[in-house]
Amino acid sequence: MRASRFFISTLKEAPSDAEIVSHKLMMRAGMIKRLGSGIYTYMPMGLRVIRKVENIIREEMNRAGAVELLMPVVQPAELWQETGRWDKMGPELMRVKDRHGRDYAIQPTSEEVITDVVRTEIKSYRQLPINFYHIQTKFRDERRPRFGLMRGREFTMKDAYSFDRDVEGMQKSYKIMYDAYVAIFNRFGLQFRAVAADNGAIGGSGSHEFHVIADTGEDALVYSPESDYAANMEAAEAVALTPTRGAATQPLVKTPTPGKAKCEHVAELLGLPLAQTVKSIVLAVDKEGAETEIWLLLLRGDHELNEVKVNKVPGLSTFRFATESEIMEFFGTKPGYLGPIGTKKPIKVVADRTVANMNDFVCGANEEDFHYTGANWGRDLPDPVVADLRNVVAGDPSPDGKGALSIQRGIEVGHVFQLGTRYSEDMKATYLDETGKPQLMQMGCYGIGVTRILGAAIEQNFDEKGIIWPASIAPFEVVLCPMGYDRSEAVKAETDKLYDALLAAGVDVVLDDRGERPGAMFADWELIGVPHRVVIGDRGLKDGKLEYQGRRDTAATAVPVAEMTAFVKARIAA
Amino acid sequence: MRASRFFISTLKEAPSDAEIVSHKLMMRAGMIKRLGSGIYTYMPMGLRVIRKVENIIREEMNRAGAVELLMPVVQPAELWQETGRWDKMGPELMRVKDRHGRDYAIQPTSEEVITDVVRTEIKSYRQLPINFYHIQTKFRDERRPRFGLMRGREFTMKDAYSFDRDVEGMQKSYKIMYDAYVAIFNRFGLQFRAVAADNGAIGGSGSHEFHVIADTGEDALVYSPESDYAANMEAAEAVALTPTRGAATQPLVKTPTPGKAKCEHVAELLGLPLAQTVKSIVLAVDKEGAETEIWLLLLRGDHELNEVKVNKVPGLSTFRFATESEIMEFFGTKPGYLGPIGTKKPIKVVADRTVANMNDFVCGANEEDFHYTGANWGRDLPDPVVADLRNVVAGDPSPDGKGALSIQRGIEVGHVFQLGTRYSEDMKATYLDETGKPQLMQMGCYGIGVTRILGAAIEQNFDEKGIIWPASIAPFEVVLCPMGYDRSEAVKAETDKLYDALLAAGVDVVLDDRGERPGAMFADWELIGVPHRVVIGDRGLKDGKLEYQGRRDTAATAVPVAEMTAFVKARIAA
Repeated sequence: MRASRFFISTLKEAPSDAEIVSHKLMMRAGMIKRLGSGIYTYMPMGLRVIRKVENIIREEMNRAGAVELLMPVVQPAELWQETGRWDKMGPELMRVKDRHGRDYAIQPTSEEVITDVVRTEIKSYRQLPINFYHIQTKFRDERRPRFGLMRGREFTMKDAYSFDRDVEGMQKSYKIMYDAYVAIFNRFGLQFRAVAADNGAIGGSGSHEFHVIADTGEDALVYSPESDYAANMEAAEAVALTPTRGAATQPLVKTPTPGKAKCEHVAELLGLPLAQTVKSIVLAVDKEGAETEIWLLLLRGDHELNEVKVNKVPGLSTFRFATESEIMEFFGTKPGYLGPIGTKKPIKVVADRTVANMNDFVCGANEEDFHYTGANWGRDLPDPVVADLRNVVAGDPSPDGKGALSIQRGIEVGHVFQLGTRYSEDMKATYLDETGKPQLMQMGCYGIGVTRILGAAIEQNFDEKGIIWPASIAPFEVVLCPMGYDRSEAVKAETDKLYDALLAAGVDVVLDDRGERPGAMFADWELIGVPHRVVIGDRGLKDGKLEYQGRRDTAATAVPVAEMTAFVKARIAA
Repeated sequence: MRASRFFISTLKEAPSDAEIVSHKLMMRAGMIKRLGSGIYTYMPMGLRVIRKVENIIREEMNRAGAVELLMPVVQPAELWQETGRWDKMGPELMRVKDRHGRDYAIQPTSEEVITDVVRTEIKSYRQLPINFYHIQTKFRDERRPRFGLMRGREFTMKDAYSFDRDVEGMQKSYKIMYDAYVAIFNRFGLQFRAVAADNGAIGGSGSHEFHVIADTGEDALVYSPESDYAANMEAAEAVALTPTRGAATQPLVKTPTPGKAKCEHVAELLGLPLAQTVKSIVLAVDKEGAETEIWLLLLRGDHELNEVKVNKVPGLSTFRFATESEIMEFFGTKPGYLGPIGTKKPIKVVADRTVANMNDFVCGANEEDFHYTGANWGRDLPDPVVADLRNVVAGDPSPDGKGALSIQRGIEVGHVFQLGTRYSEDMKATYLDETGKPQLMQMGCYGIGVTRILGAAIEQNFDEKGIIWPASIAPFEVVLCPMGYDRSEAVKAETDKLYDALLAAGVDVVLDDRGERPGAMFADWELIGVPHRVVIGDRGLKDGKLEYQGRRDTAATAVPVAEMTAFVKARIAA
């Protein structure tokens, strides 16, 4: 590509609404252009990256035996009503009426449509397994769109859907997709991690998220460097930090802790480690036609509540946090001094696994400005219900018993789910088995946020000059920067020769023939993030040399003219 | 591609709502699947064709210097309001509100968005000309979606938009696009014709339509086989069939024509050629705050009114047909006996060019059951206003003076427009010229109905067995049909060898390893329309031969095994 025949538009400053690095750099590099809140035009430079991402995904999906089709953006409401999602999904589902007043969804995802395709196309077990995918425009009416392509409203997603005869088949299809995702993210040239995830609202029996590692990631990823254990913080199992409960050694003493409403301050006042304190979190569960239940969750003072885990405690799936008046009513005092001993009205107590094994601990005394010290299970209060309630912290033992956990930040860019019969049941997607009996299909679904990949790749790979694309998804692999293309015949001749040679060698090269000053030209391509650069100048040519510089290199390398094509190819492959 | 790893789904019968051949065959061949009214899933087999069409378009657009980007499906109403199209476009424009109640259009086209991109990105004359295009999902809420992909609601379109400094530049950009379209349609391997078109509601100064020739086409294309004159019937100029008016030779006679309300019947009764009769068409133009005007249009008895032309007659841009009571009021009689002589109230008369040169003609006498014969301009009634009002007919002189016109049917699949400043004026899309003064950009727009191409290609290329794709857009170029792939080792070995050889030669080949019976297998691929077929069987292999058959061939050709790859490549290239 000659730059003069392309469209390059860079900015010195990012617009003020760009909060994060990837958004700022994509705007400055002219990759995207804002059309409305969370809606972007993919400019020529950005579209090239998107196409490369799509092609890698397509090749690996095809290799894994998935078959591409294309489902519509505008989808009849009737299908969404069959699975109940028309009602269950909130305002994030963009809804539209046609001229006859019929309802449609603008697709955020396509489980219903693909299940409709499959239930009419697939009749026999002989046609299974099958895995369909498409790469299509999606819309999600986010409450607060932001971060450019990271949380847009209109975006491009690859979504695949597998259908199998039985659970075993589904798990096999799932594994094939998991492996395809590993291949895809490897080809992107990004550092990533697959982690076990919570299935969330989508239901089903198992799922993994694929995260691009980045300090700015919204998700915390938990893993053991000594095993293959990896999970999203939401789903990472926290073990009891002491394997058994120690015996009571102290008496229960009500101790004044005036004005000390936080565990940190209580521990400091009492000269005790924070790990000896227990904090109280009060939840409420509303019951139709009955009194609201009040629950007390107990966590070690230095631990954090994990709400996803709380949701899974039997009886707490619909929990909310208690109001202050409910707390006053059941505990007789205000937050900061609450505890499991001597509440005003009966409550349900759940202790985190670690708290359940503590002895001689400190907790609120249900009286303002007082805590108990030396509290012990069995002696001072009944043994609690025990559950995993907390977020893991770095250094916790890995739940597989191998090593201690580490934590890093990640950006979710892919998600694979075992859905089971969640959709096939509602939509009666059956096949006839060997005996001619109808059976529900076992389904899996597999998404990759195509446009989000761009944001994540940049959050992982940038410096003060701009973006640093991995070669496989860079808008161009190499840029040729001639010094005086229109002034020096030698420069023009060598540049054209190298350009043709690189094209012939299958390299995606851009020749900057815009006639910009060298400084502006270099700054543009460093901002845009092309990973390899060759400078062609009269000075170097006198010695038969061109200058190569990788985007992360601190200095240029002089390379003989005749060797440059091979040199560049080797660097791209490196 | 191995068929076992693909998805093939054919039907013996087309669904009853499929009215035209292309719709029926696409449904039967498993290319598309109906999701809702005018909304289709592109199944794997159909998507392959779409991708090939897209790639040809993309390559030729890039070659012509256009730059690809991607504009959103969901577009803020504000931009559509700037050009007035938010109000002007009727229910065909699908409108949606987001969670905050803000209005959006689901794009049917992108003039507003691209003009918004350009007005902020293009500052200087140095950046012009520029031509942006995208290939994107469109939605048009048709009142009566039908004919499968021919008149769907959701469809894929390539739309390009050029911006130039002046009219001359715009015309140059237009010519480049025109030539690119010719290259594109040639590569599709379809018979097509570019015709001058009416600009219609989109405005601007000139346009051409690209039609795929097909007997089932909705449009009539007018052309001169002896020149390059070609126009849509709507826009084709009709010349006066006699160059000058003959002198009056007959007296004006009021002649009884009882019960003969049509020119054909009057001519028959009087023993005169139909070409000597004149028919009357009464129009009304409503005037705000004034009386409705009544207009009488006169056409030769064997000619047809062209409403697009009527629209262009000064004073008639808002015409409607007159009601019967208006006709009674102004003519004093009912339709069938109307004419320009002796109306009850004054009217405006416009004669078609041919009528204006007629002498001794027959027309209604404004009295039931009577016509005048021997009517002559100047003598019996004043000279009329003259205009081109009629459709041309085959055999008319070509308006360029070269030969006689022919007419054929076509399906519109592309349209190129010179828009001028229609959008740049409303949206203030200006650039700074050499003197630093802001100037409006001159715009062109260029569409191709990507998904419609499939329907049009089939309407042009099918037989009783199914579709016959041109090789360049066929889902596969060649199908290998082994006779007993799982039974005969020799067949399997030769099939695999040929498959690998064709792949290595860059041929898009499908190997049917599904284990279908030969009859069913052949029928499937004939229905799907793969243009080249090779049969590999033990019988032929005994003689070292394979059987080649082109989709239009009546018989197979035996080709030595070793020569088949070259043979097939030559046939594809033919």
